[in-house]
Amino acid sequence: MSEPAIPSANQEADPATAAALIIGNEILTGKIADQNLGVLARQLRKLGVKLVRAHTILDDIDTITSEVRSLSRAHAWVFTSGGVGPTHDDVTIEAVARAFDREVIVAPELDAMLRVAYGDRLTEGHLLMARIPEGARLVRSDAIPWPCVLVENVWVLPGVPEIFSLKMALVERELGQGRSFVSVAVLSALDEGHLKPFLDRVVAAHPGVEIGSYPRWGDTEWRTKITFDGRDRALVESARDAFVSTLPAGQPVREA
Amino acid sequence: MSEPAIPSANQEADPATAAALIIGNEILTGKIADQNLGVLARQLRKLGVKLVRAHTILDDIDTITSEVRSLSRAHAWVFTSGGVGPTHDDVTIEAVARAFDREVIVAPELDAMLRVAYGDRLTEGHLLMARIPEGARLVRSDAIPWPCVLVENVWVLPGVPEIFSLKMALVERELGQGRSFVSVAVLSALDEGHLKPFLDRVVAAHPGVEIGSYPRWGDTEWRTKITFDGRDRALVESARDAFVSTLPAGQPVREA
Repeated sequence: MSEPAIPSANQEADPATAAALIIGNEILTGKIADQNLGVLARQLRKLGVKLVRAHTILDDIDTITSEVRSLSRAHAWVFTSGGVGPTHDDVTIEAVARAFDREVIVAPELDAMLRVAYGDRLTEGHLLMARIPEGARLVRSDAIPWPCVLVENVWVLPGVPEIFSLKMALVERELGQGRSFVSVAVLSALDEGHLKPFLDRVVAAHPGVEIGSYPRWGDTEWRTKITFDGRDRALVESARDAFVSTLPAGQPVREA
Repeated sequence: MSEPAIPSANQEADPATAAALIIGNEILTGKIADQNLGVLARQLRKLGVKLVRAHTILDDIDTITSEVRSLSRAHAWVFTSGGVGPTHDDVTIEAVARAFDREVIVAPELDAMLRVAYGDRLTEGHLLMARIPEGARLVRSDAIPWPCVLVENVWVLPGVPEIFSLKMALVERELGQGRSFVSVAVLSALDEGHLKPFLDRVVAAHPGVEIGSYPRWGDTEWRTKITFDGRDRALVESARDAFVSTLPAGQPVREA
């Protein structure tokens, strides 16, 4: 098993973009609500990586293969969630291997860890969790001994939310600290229809800041949340201040 | 504005598939967790429509246009969520129009409804909510007077969860009652590694039933939830019963 010395982001893609691939019939049948996308999104913001899309798909090996292939070509990083257990519906490892034309092999160190962990209770089923695509990197830390599987620029993460969250520390360590996104927000008692001209002005005057407007339903204190995002705190805060200063006098607004 | 008399599912796609398009920077930045996918998924199961993918994307008009075009060709129905308000980041109506090479027009009846609703407080911003793609159908009911916009096989739904949920009644009425999916589940105290051979047998013997296995983290009473899904209740229940009957004696299992 070859282990490249450095993380292998797709160098041809925008260095600061990522895509998520959420895998699982249970989400598309509405049995379980995904909890991992938000965790990943917030982690990537902190690292200065822009998450530009997330695809939620079924446990189908051909679909996963095709998605991994296309998303990994178009983005610096891809993060998959789900389908890494030992049962028949866990086909992510096989699919990621196929996406990169690799074989699935048994990682000796994972095999050894499973034998220690399960001892007498070990089954062939447990050992299936030692399979990885050939040439995958195993990323771990002292605090997180069970490694993440990283194939080229694709992080293969587990769907169980508690474990997915734990693995974020490994992602943070490997991707390194980029320039974090900054986000500030204000709440206004005006609705979006009334706010539109004020928003249009601040949007036009601050092209380097992403400005979002979100109506709130059924709240009596405020009707719209306005967010200001970017990599430069001074620019972001100046857009917010400019917006607030243009609102009609007497219109309640407060920081969110 | 032409109004076809019947809903216009993509007749070339599998009659029972759908895709969701969740639109909004706020989700991919982790500020807000989407709540609409689960609501849509459960509604479609009830109607016998299989939701096969969901794409979450940014508020970018070109991206939305391209996604609407490709998803609408490949699925019987597409449901968009978000981006239908009056502000600069609400570009879904324009994008859906472009996807079908249509103009955006003002729907006179929506314009009239807005003028009545806002009265003296009406602004140009509010009137932007009367824009629809030319030839769109407006789907409404007595209980839900503000209509849904339906363009070919694309339902343009609002992102605000309370309103999105309300609109499901219109979807149900238009799509009609198909053959609902049935879902049953059991909980087992065994982990997935131990369950694998029993699962493999029931999967092989019941090709008409979708069987899922979901580990639970940190629970002391049971470790795995096993789900059985399909359109035929007898087949689904018989797969469940077959699975339970093969488990080793003394292994606790109960219905979920």
